[in-house]
Amino acid sequence: MPITIKSSFAFELDRPTDVLLQFEAAKIPEQRILSSDTILSEAEHCARVPAQDDIGERIWIRAEGLFEVDYRAEVEPERLLPEIASLEMLAPHDMPGEAVQYLFDSRYCPADQFQPFVEAEFGGTTGGERVAAIREWIASHFTYQPGTSDARTGAVESFIGRRGICRDYAHVLVTLARASTIPARYVACYAPGVEPPDFHAIAEVFLNDPTTPGGGAWHLVDATGMAEPAQTVKIGIGRDAADVSFLTSFGANNFLRSSVSVEAT
Amino acid sequence: MPITIKSSFAFELDRPTDVLLQFEAAKIPEQRILSSDTILSEAEHCARVPAQDDIGERIWIRAEGLFEVDYRAEVEPERLLPEIASLEMLAPHDMPGEAVQYLFDSRYCPADQFQPFVEAEFGGTTGGERVAAIREWIASHFTYQPGTSDARTGAVESFIGRRGICRDYAHVLVTLARASTIPARYVACYAPGVEPPDFHAIAEVFLNDPTTPGGGAWHLVDATGMAEPAQTVKIGIGRDAADVSFLTSFGANNFLRSSVSVEAT
Amino acid sequence: MPITIKSSFAFELDRPTDVLLQFEAAKIPEQRILSSDTILSEAEHCARVPAQDDIGERIWIRAEGLFEVDYRAEVEPERLLPEIASLEMLAPHDMPGEAVQYLFDSRYCPADQFQPFVEAEFGGTTGGERVAAIREWIASHFTYQPGTSDARTGAVESFIGRRGICRDYAHVLVTLARASTIPARYVACYAPGVEPPDFHAIAEVFLNDPTTPGGGAWHLVDATGMAEPAQTVKIGIGRDAADVSFLTSFGANNFLRSSVSVEAT
Amino acid sequence: MPITIKSSFAFELDRPTDVLLQFEAAKIPEQRILSSDTILSEAEHCARVPAQDDIGERIWIRAEGLFEVDYRAEVEPERLLPEIASLEMLAPHDMPGEAVQYLFDSRYCPADQFQPFVEAEFGGTTGGERVAAIREWIASHFTYQPGTSDARTGAVESFIGRRGICRDYAHVLVTLARASTIPARYVACYAPGVEPPDFHAIAEVFLNDPTTPGGGAWHLVDATGMAEPAQTVKIGIGRDAADVSFLTSFGANNFLRSSVSVEAT
Repeated sequence: MPITIKSSFAFELDRPTDVLLQFEAAKIPEQRILSSDTILSEAEHCARVPAQDDIGERIWIRAEGLFEVDYRAEVEPERLLPEIASLEMLAPHDMPGEAVQYLFDSRYCPADQFQPFVEAEFGGTTGGERVAAIREWIASHFTYQPGTSDARTGAVESFIGRRGICRDYAHVLVTLARASTIPARYVACYAPGVEPPDFHAIAEVFLNDPTTPGGGAWHLVDATGMAEPAQTVKIGIGRDAADVSFLTSFGANNFLRSSVSVEAT
Repeated sequence: MPITIKSSFAFELDRPTDVLLQFEAAKIPEQRILSSDTILSEAEHCARVPAQDDIGERIWIRAEGLFEVDYRAEVEPERLLPEIASLEMLAPHDMPGEAVQYLFDSRYCPADQFQPFVEAEFGGTTGGERVAAIREWIASHFTYQPGTSDARTGAVESFIGRRGICRDYAHVLVTLARASTIPARYVACYAPGVEPPDFHAIAEVFLNDPTTPGGGAWHLVDATGMAEPAQTVKIGIGRDAADVSFLTSFGANNFLRSSVSVEAT
Repeated sequence: MPITIKSSFAFELDRPTDVLLQFEAAKIPEQRILSSDTILSEAEHCARVPAQDDIGERIWIRAEGLFEVDYRAEVEPERLLPEIASLEMLAPHDMPGEAVQYLFDSRYCPADQFQPFVEAEFGGTTGGERVAAIREWIASHFTYQPGTSDARTGAVESFIGRRGICRDYAHVLVTLARASTIPARYVACYAPGVEPPDFHAIAEVFLNDPTTPGGGAWHLVDATGMAEPAQTVKIGIGRDAADVSFLTSFGANNFLRSSVSVEAT
Repeated sequence: MPITIKSSFAFELDRPTDVLLQFEAAKIPEQRILSSDTILSEAEHCARVPAQDDIGERIWIRAEGLFEVDYRAEVEPERLLPEIASLEMLAPHDMPGEAVQYLFDSRYCPADQFQPFVEAEFGGTTGGERVAAIREWIASHFTYQPGTSDARTGAVESFIGRRGICRDYAHVLVTLARASTIPARYVACYAPGVEPPDFHAIAEVFLNDPTTPGGGAWHLVDATGMAEPAQTVKIGIGRDAADVSFLTSFGANNFLRSSVSVEAT
């Protein structure tokens, strides 16, 4: 089922400023880009570079004045969708090199201090069952409440306050998964059903699918329950929200507007 | 001039535990491994995986009881050694994809809040001059004082307390460089002259060498002043100390001893 | 010279809620209340209790719906105004019991970690000279910038970011004074010259006036430079902003408006 | 039943240094001092001042070289001991002025962010029932584990890590009580049954005893379960551990030894 995406945003730069953008559906095997169209305001410089782990692209621009981004795409997700709870833990000593960094603490996900908590709360589970238990725990203990968090909010504050938005839910899930020795990363994405419609963020965990040769792979999990993995279109990934923002400005910017619409068609 | 390295450490695991080790000189073009010998205790599992950005290797082991590591190597560093202050800033929009993640905040290096400070303190400088100014500022304002920091200490605390060990010096340098829009990462290494002799940590910044085709490259900087880039042997790199430790244990471990000796011969 | 104060604010409570108010000029020897008039909306309960260290009063109310506060007063400050830099350090062992708590860390003023900084930056000074040096350092390194801080911001973040509003300036001054073994507290006040006009916050330090018998006393210091101690009208004091707010609501409240006007007449 | 206390400690000061000591049983109505003997090394200065809220005394000394403290006392606690769970919440608007400061955030007890947690976890309870529920929750979720916390550890870290020593248990209880609009403070004390024997810390909450005229009073609670309120001898109180330490040194000190023995006789 193709997903139709329209997103646009605009900002103003008082003087020539470098800005990093990342808002396009990533060209990766698990999602087929049926069509896409990116319209950017004119810029002094514009360069595309591969994004983190080669998933998607970042666009560097250097511009001044009003800058507008308009993006439309039709994307067909084609990923495998095993039940998370059926997946097995990958023993640490079997983890490939590229998964290892996602076991470690990051800016908003200081996982190490959560080890006693995950042992106490989810002690009887491992692997996919552990992740499913974490997802249910967050879903049943947290309140989705825009305006209670901001760009400085990390998993510690969200865990204590038990509220936030998609970014905060993802940070807590990533943190508790890493504390369980399960590699976990942060995924910026588009998904239908996000309310209010906006750029979305969920988590991805590295687990073993016993029905698949090779086995170890990344699997999407959304603690907010708003996004279906089958309909999720990845933009990019990172350790946490510090790594993957649709707009990172290296200098002051005056953000004017954004709108996102995502539909399963 | 070859560098002769001897390092060894030992720990005890009460039950079968996964442990990640990273202590060998990385096999990378900028340093030639003349000889090396790694002796490990027997383990239930032992697997090597590429480390971050393919610089060096991590060794996964699963073991129980006493575990000993003994490493000897002779390594010839062959890196270019331009004067840091002579290097130019790379405009953000010219940065290659692989450098971008090192602009972002990490666990121990929350750079964004330091932007007003670097502007105020180092405002007239950019690029390599900025990095040299940061290095001098740290060197003249900090006291090298083992015992004043621990594994939880990040750049904020070190910046305020103005003291610490190599790890803390590197974190502050990395943080202030990133706040200056200069990609910076953390380097675990061996170097003669470290006092007391131990595993060492320094920073690496991505700058433009106008005398070299291509230009953008990583350059070592040690704010402690103890390590000469010409004699430094890299083990691995990461966003900060969270990523690159000689020993990361996924379960309790009883650390017994370590010794490091590094000599320029 | 009498100071004429008009302040008013309003908020809405969806259900019966306890609220603590503190907005009146304190009745203390150092300022004579020439006239005052407090008009409050009707409340289910209303009780006055002495505020911290018996300086001013707090008003407990329990109310529902729209609540309005209207306060007018004419106050004549009559405090001694020695030059801060002329005051002497009180040796710790000479400090009276009531000053001691203001040496300790509080919510927004974790002073202990700043000891190396104050030694390095202000090492040649003590007592009033030290406080004057701290005040000048803040004044010359900080930017007064509304919108860059919020209720969670403490002295660590302000010290690093080098910007904020009166609350943040006061927190940093209090923190650096305590790190210098000088008791310091936070003062909520009215003062002409505050721009934009609002409730104001400054610091107060406990120092020895060699020209006065007894000697040890509290002295006002404003690192923002906006308030003259001679024209400052104290509302109340506390360890930091956690203790002394014009409005603390024990349940949700919808804040509607506030206005403050203070004039020297 | 009288409690027999012996405590002693010693430290060395390389140069003349101000030190604040607080280790004696407080002379307050709820505990009768049957006998007491304090022996201090000679000091350049020595002065006693009332401690926080006039509970106990602090001793200022200025000394150099070896300093030894030896204290012996026999104390008879005589406090009322209602069952905590039977005590009623005091409505905020009925709280006396002196209790109000113990509702506010302090250095190690940033209570405000815990409001959603206490509502979710203890939502059906108020007053003494709430405090009892908090005490049971901590007792059943935390592990008493010396060496996992230090002087920088606050309630956020302890809450997440679910472990610590008496200081940490008290911080978490104080924090969760304040988040429940129950004034709570930190109590340094002696108590038999503390294992290993040491200075002890517990919490005290301000609640209403419906069987007593006046009603609002402070009541001891120990989340570690080690100290019986009937056998607890108070040394002093404070907002949290920042306020009440047996030894606060205004300059470097070399701590040599301490020993505490407390027996119910």
